[in-house]
Amino acid sequence: MKKPLILVVNDDGIYAKGIRNLIRIMNDFGDVVVVAPDSPQSGKSHAITIEATIRCDEVVIDDSPQKEYACSGTPVDCVKLAVNQILDRKPDLCVSGINHGSNSAINVIYSGTMSAAIEGALEGIPSIGFSLLDYDPNADFLVSEKYIKEITKQVLKHGLDVGICLNVNIPKSVHGEKLKGLKVCRQANANWEEEFDERTDPKGRVYYWLTGKFVNYDKGIDTDEWALANHYVSVVPVQFDLTAHPSLLSVNKLLLNE
Amino acid sequence: MKKPLILVVNDDGIYAKGIRNLIRIMNDFGDVVVVAPDSPQSGKSHAITIEATIRCDEVVIDDSPQKEYACSGTPVDCVKLAVNQILDRKPDLCVSGINHGSNSAINVIYSGTMSAAIEGALEGIPSIGFSLLDYDPNADFLVSEKYIKEITKQVLKHGLDVGICLNVNIPKSVHGEKLKGLKVCRQANANWEEEFDERTDPKGRVYYWLTGKFVNYDKGIDTDEWALANHYVSVVPVQFDLTAHPSLLSVNKLLLNE
Repeated sequence: MKKPLILVVNDDGIYAKGIRNLIRIMNDFGDVVVVAPDSPQSGKSHAITIEATIRCDEVVIDDSPQKEYACSGTPVDCVKLAVNQILDRKPDLCVSGINHGSNSAINVIYSGTMSAAIEGALEGIPSIGFSLLDYDPNADFLVSEKYIKEITKQVLKHGLDVGICLNVNIPKSVHGEKLKGLKVCRQANANWEEEFDERTDPKGRVYYWLTGKFVNYDKGIDTDEWALANHYVSVVPVQFDLTAHPSLLSVNKLLLNE
Repeated sequence: MKKPLILVVNDDGIYAKGIRNLIRIMNDFGDVVVVAPDSPQSGKSHAITIEATIRCDEVVIDDSPQKEYACSGTPVDCVKLAVNQILDRKPDLCVSGINHGSNSAINVIYSGTMSAAIEGALEGIPSIGFSLLDYDPNADFLVSEKYIKEITKQVLKHGLDVGICLNVNIPKSVHGEKLKGLKVCRQANANWEEEFDERTDPKGRVYYWLTGKFVNYDKGIDTDEWALANHYVSVVPVQFDLTAHPSLLSVNKLLLNE
C-alpha cells in the first residue's frame, strides 16, 4: 500500500522543538515533507507575501527520513508553496505545529499555526493544527504525543468534512498529571484586553510593546476554554466562511429596509 | 449634540488615495482620528506585532480637521493601539479602507483592511471595511462615495449586531456607468489558484513571486461575487467565530465514536 504523503508546517520556525517533535511523530505515519518558516512567525495570522520575493531552500536538519524546506515567507506562504511548487501531488494530510502556546478561542485568528491549517483546508487537504499550552521554547511535548497519534490516525483513515480543519489544543501537564481525554468543542467567546507598554528609546522617541491579558467571557461548558481548564484536549472544527449568516436579515433591514 | 468619534484605518498605508478619500468623507460625519500603517500592509491579514516594537507618531498630511497617526505596525496593531493607547474613549465607528482592490469572497481572510474592521468588531465597535475593485493606486473613488455615505449614516444611527462588521465591496465603474445599488450577501465559495513565478537572482539562487488567478466555484446568486459581477455593491456581514458548527457532530463521531 502506498504511504500517505504528509505536509508539516508551523509558525515558530523550522528549528522549534514543537515541529521537530511533530516531524518525528509523522514519520511513523507516512512520507513527510516539511515546508516551514526559516524564522519565528508567531502572530502572522493568514498573512501572505505579495510585495516581496520568497526564498524556499532544501535543508537537512537531522538524519530522519523527511525532506525539509526552509522558507522565508509566512506559514500560509509555506502551504501555498508546498502544494503548488514543491510537492508533486496533493498531500493526504497537512499538520501544523506543535505550536508553543495556546491557539484556543480568538487566538485562532491571530495564529500562524492555525492559518496554515486553514490554508490546507482551503486547498482541499485534511488539515490539523496542534498547540501545546506552554510558551517555553523547551516545553515538554511528551503528553501531547498520544493525542496527536490518535487524531492523526482517525483523520488519515476517514478524512474530514470538506473545507474544515481541526484546531487541537493540549493542556500543559503539571506534575506529570494525566489528561482526561478529548473534547470536541466550539471556539469560546474570549478575547485579549490589550495593554501597550510605552517606552522611550535612547534617542528620546516613544515606542510600544504589545502586551495584554486573556479574558474568557464565555460560561459555556461546550467551549475550548472550558475543556482546557478542565484538563481535556480541545478539538474545534474550524471553517473559513466568515459570513455572519444570522445577521443577513438585520443588515438587509438596516441598509435596504427589506 | 456630541459628534461621533470615528476611527479610520487601512492596509494600503496612510498616504494611499483610498484612505485620503475615506478621511474626507468621514470628516462630514464626526470627529476623525486616523491611525494607519506608515507603509503598505496588503495581505497582512490579522497579523499582530509581538516579536518587535511598534512606532506610532502623530503626522500632519493635509489641512483638514482630522488627527492622524502613522504606525509602523499592521492594520490590526493600528486598531489595538488606537483603542487602547491613543483615543480617550471608545470610537462610535471604525472604518477601514477604501482598499485598492477587492476583498470579496475568501479575500476577507487575507486582507489587512478587513482584519482591521474585524478587530474593531472584536473591540465592540461598529466597524465597516470598504474596498473598491480597482488595484490602481490612482483609482477613481468617486462612484463609491454615495454608497459609503449611505452605509455610514445607517450604521452610525442604528449600530450593528454585536460582534459583526460589514465587508463592503464596490465595483469599478466602467465608462461612468451607474451601479445598481446595494446587495446584502454571503461570502462566495471562491478561491485563488496559485502559481509561483520562479526566478533566479544574479547570484544564481532561486526565488519566487506569489501570483495566481481567482476562481469562483459558487453558482449562488446570494453571494458577493454574483452581486459584484452584476454591478451591485456587495455587503457581507462578517463574524469571527470560526467554529464549523455543522461539523461538531461528525468530528465527535470521528474522534470519540459518540
